[in-house]
Amino acid sequence: MSITKSQIRSGSYYDSVVLMQLQRNLLTLPGVEDAGVVMATPANLELLADSELLSDESKTAKPEDLLIVVKAGSADDAEAAIGKVDELLKARRSATGSAYRPKSLAAAAKNLPAAEWALISVPGRYAAQVAQEALDLGKHVFLYSDNVAIEDEIELKQRAGEKGLLVMGPDCGTAIINGIGLGFANRVNRGSIGVVAASGTGLQAVTTAIHNLGGGVSQAIGTGGRDLKAAVGARSMLQALHYLAKDDDTKVIVLISKPPDEEVIAELLTVASQCGKPVVVDFIGFAAPASEIGNIYFAAGLDQTAQLAVGLSKSNMRTPEVVENSHGFVRGLFSGGTLAYEVLAGLQNFLYPIYSNVAIRDSQELENPLNSKAHTILDLGEDDFTVGRLHPMMDNDLRLRRMKQEAEDKEVGLILLDVVLGEGSHPNPASELGPAIVSNRKTRKDLEFVALVIGTDADPQKIDEQIKQLEDAGATVLRNVADTVAYVAARLATQSKAIGVLLRKFSEPLAAINVGVESFFDSLKSQGAQAIQVDWRPPALGNEELASILEKMKA
Amino acid sequence: MSITKSQIRSGSYYDSVVLMQLQRNLLTLPGVEDAGVVMATPANLELLADSELLSDESKTAKPEDLLIVVKAGSADDAEAAIGKVDELLKARRSATGSAYRPKSLAAAAKNLPAAEWALISVPGRYAAQVAQEALDLGKHVFLYSDNVAIEDEIELKQRAGEKGLLVMGPDCGTAIINGIGLGFANRVNRGSIGVVAASGTGLQAVTTAIHNLGGGVSQAIGTGGRDLKAAVGARSMLQALHYLAKDDDTKVIVLISKPPDEEVIAELLTVASQCGKPVVVDFIGFAAPASEIGNIYFAAGLDQTAQLAVGLSKSNMRTPEVVENSHGFVRGLFSGGTLAYEVLAGLQNFLYPIYSNVAIRDSQELENPLNSKAHTILDLGEDDFTVGRLHPMMDNDLRLRRMKQEAEDKEVGLILLDVVLGEGSHPNPASELGPAIVSNRKTRKDLEFVALVIGTDADPQKIDEQIKQLEDAGATVLRNVADTVAYVAARLATQSKAIGVLLRKFSEPLAAINVGVESFFDSLKSQGAQAIQVDWRPPALGNEELASILEKMKA
Repeated sequence: MSITKSQIRSGSYYDSVVLMQLQRNLLTLPGVEDAGVVMATPANLELLADSELLSDESKTAKPEDLLIVVKAGSADDAEAAIGKVDELLKARRSATGSAYRPKSLAAAAKNLPAAEWALISVPGRYAAQVAQEALDLGKHVFLYSDNVAIEDEIELKQRAGEKGLLVMGPDCGTAIINGIGLGFANRVNRGSIGVVAASGTGLQAVTTAIHNLGGGVSQAIGTGGRDLKAAVGARSMLQALHYLAKDDDTKVIVLISKPPDEEVIAELLTVASQCGKPVVVDFIGFAAPASEIGNIYFAAGLDQTAQLAVGLSKSNMRTPEVVENSHGFVRGLFSGGTLAYEVLAGLQNFLYPIYSNVAIRDSQELENPLNSKAHTILDLGEDDFTVGRLHPMMDNDLRLRRMKQEAEDKEVGLILLDVVLGEGSHPNPASELGPAIVSNRKTRKDLEFVALVIGTDADPQKIDEQIKQLEDAGATVLRNVADTVAYVAARLATQSKAIGVLLRKFSEPLAAINVGVESFFDSLKSQGAQAIQVDWRPPALGNEELASILEKMKA
Repeated sequence: MSITKSQIRSGSYYDSVVLMQLQRNLLTLPGVEDAGVVMATPANLELLADSELLSDESKTAKPEDLLIVVKAGSADDAEAAIGKVDELLKARRSATGSAYRPKSLAAAAKNLPAAEWALISVPGRYAAQVAQEALDLGKHVFLYSDNVAIEDEIELKQRAGEKGLLVMGPDCGTAIINGIGLGFANRVNRGSIGVVAASGTGLQAVTTAIHNLGGGVSQAIGTGGRDLKAAVGARSMLQALHYLAKDDDTKVIVLISKPPDEEVIAELLTVASQCGKPVVVDFIGFAAPASEIGNIYFAAGLDQTAQLAVGLSKSNMRTPEVVENSHGFVRGLFSGGTLAYEVLAGLQNFLYPIYSNVAIRDSQELENPLNSKAHTILDLGEDDFTVGRLHPMMDNDLRLRRMKQEAEDKEVGLILLDVVLGEGSHPNPASELGPAIVSNRKTRKDLEFVALVIGTDADPQKIDEQIKQLEDAGATVLRNVADTVAYVAARLATQSKAIGVLLRKFSEPLAAINVGVESFFDSLKSQGAQAIQVDWRPPALGNEELASILEKMKA
């Protein structure tokens, strides 16, 4: 029968790689059947229990304790294995301990002054402090650690922005800077595609697919998963986007993230739409409003993201048309419900806030469909408007009245109409809409009209004549939703806010200081990068009480 | 100063086209400045108020009353106009009253026996009854009317299904059957693309874009906006999908809808994946998991839907690979969070129910990440699993233990792993995963293993050797998310339930009975279709009390 023995070590700190090695080494000892070496968090205890490695004694361990468990054929074997723990830990240390290891970031920075980067993977509760030190030393930060408070993230990114430095993370697993992978990163060809990702495996999957499709990567910059939350405001992604927009080696930009908060999307995509390069957007789990809006390409999934980016990097990209910026609110008066919905789905990525009686998000709900506010997209075919009335595709009366009402609002800069031709629809809609446009433009010369015309050359209304009447009245006529959204967004999008000092150009070759997981240091060296490992220990060896006393003494 | 006069008519019924004409004719009378002719719903009263057409007297009108309002330069002119209402209504009737008009559907059916279709656009509260009559007469129904109860919709569709008949709607605005547009419909080339849409302008925008891109439409079938709700179960869309799958004239199928309820998606896309033709899906506002999964193409927006459909209709389509159906649940054990999320995003469209610790929908939340249930996709890199441990890309320990646990569950048919190569990752993951696969397959010969391998030929792990080790262990190796989802879905998808008698082939040329909006009848005739207009009146001329007495007398 198997015997399980365990040991609890409080206040010890070991790198997780060391713990994994210890567990593996324990398994090689005589009679040992299974072993576990973990921090004694509730989840880890449950995992041990599932593996039948949890003794009663182990259950008393606290989350900050190191728990070592050995299951062996006999009590002697189990105890012998436990007895070897210190020896195994010591052996591991001396094996890797040959090179000089400074004890502090500051010492490491002095030792390797070329290092522009600090890779930080210490446990979360120490990470913000270490990152702060790195910023104070003028280093860009790659922050692998998770469990960092969002307040700390905001403070770090704010400080970084002021200094022209970048903070990737916290919880940033991967990046490729000047061809060198940081953290988890695939070896990929260098090339003209710049990637910014809030998702680690998202970045890996896309950069590998780019390589496998014959493309290459200029820079791949991580931001950490929370960067696109409203509280953080996409600080890192915006910095990276600006950097890649100015970077001569980057022809196509890729943005990868779970869907950002709505106000962040509008800010981010407005900047993207004005950056002068094609931008492929993969907001994972996001409903793309179109395949393309202006210079922005919405991808469905990681595979298509890579395909689009490689295709664009190899093609003669069209220069995005420059549309003169206008001002004011858009008021969309639609007869087609799906057209209203799709236009809203598109415009919500550029104009904020926006309201509708066919709201996609709760925050867009228009309390009273009879009164527009800010940017508003209305479906005049909704039940509110059509009980006991003909559909607005047949009868323009309601639309004509509403156009007048909107034109009287001086904050309105653009009125957007759809004109749906075909059987069943009004026999000559432009004959009524055209004169109304002329009449409204008489009193509001600055007011712009845009008409989205849906129809074919075989439709009974004669589409060419419809378009001519609308254009003669002064309207801009567009023929599909994506072009309409791109045009209106470009006309009305607000200029993006400044985002602190821009990043300075990353120098080559890359050199870095590594604090934490040693295999990241090994990986840097094996890629030929200059690197130095800090022999980091938690303050007071993880004893929080003592650390706090030391901290007070310093202050 | 202008004077507003109004008249309230209770219990009157007029077609909405007649009311629009009346309003227009009133505007041509001497001294008349504005006029409104509407059912007196609260929304319509507010609209009248906005146009300064609401008198105190008008406010007493009830929603079922017809309200006629005239604003004129003098009281005399206003009253004279109101006095002409009966005359104007009578003139309109005699102008259109020349052809024979049966008073009932049954009489119309006798008069035009070729009519397979009934177009119904009477007010919502009468519509279900009229549709029921049409089904009893063996007619397919195009139900334009809105405000029909969902219970009535379910009953109508159930009855229709039993008879091999189709109910498009309620609130179905458009269809093109055998080249003839019903309701609102554009004139488009006939061709090989079959469209099924729960969205009216969605169908119009896509069919026009198909035409404008040089493609053509075989059939365009509406379903009504609620068809894909769980309660209705996509009855009409499933019927239409089966019809188009068997239809020799249809090479490519397009499905358009707002996102269906989750259990409906799985049913619908499983049927689509087995239909043997390419299917372009535009679930408007839906986050597409990939651009393609097997024979299913996810489009972003109406424009891309048409582009994809036309492209596929002109290309030599690849025959979807036939994957032998297996059984059991999938358990996905991922080291990459975004890979887990994307695989879940894909599989949720085919496998139901499915659970995860990175749930996309609330209903997918896995209460305890340590215990899988049904189909489960796990991100083993989530915080629950990684506190004080190395990431599963570096350390396979957790994954090996979990594989064993899953293999012991006899309901599990397939274990799915990701293997992410590159810097920082485990130096030889397949050397640990391979033997574990072999060992688990020894005890569970029916258990299938699938590995999604992410990496490049330059990665330090040597990707070819990694793949070989995994394949030698008996795993199926795939290289991207979309292929992985397609493979797993095809292996484990349940066969679709039967959906009643299949639709009989629509005969040509199309002939139809129209009940309601007269312009739909005019449109049928102008397209060269045989049609007959029913001179429909509400029971007891809209007097609900009297109607109910008559109904009781009949019973």
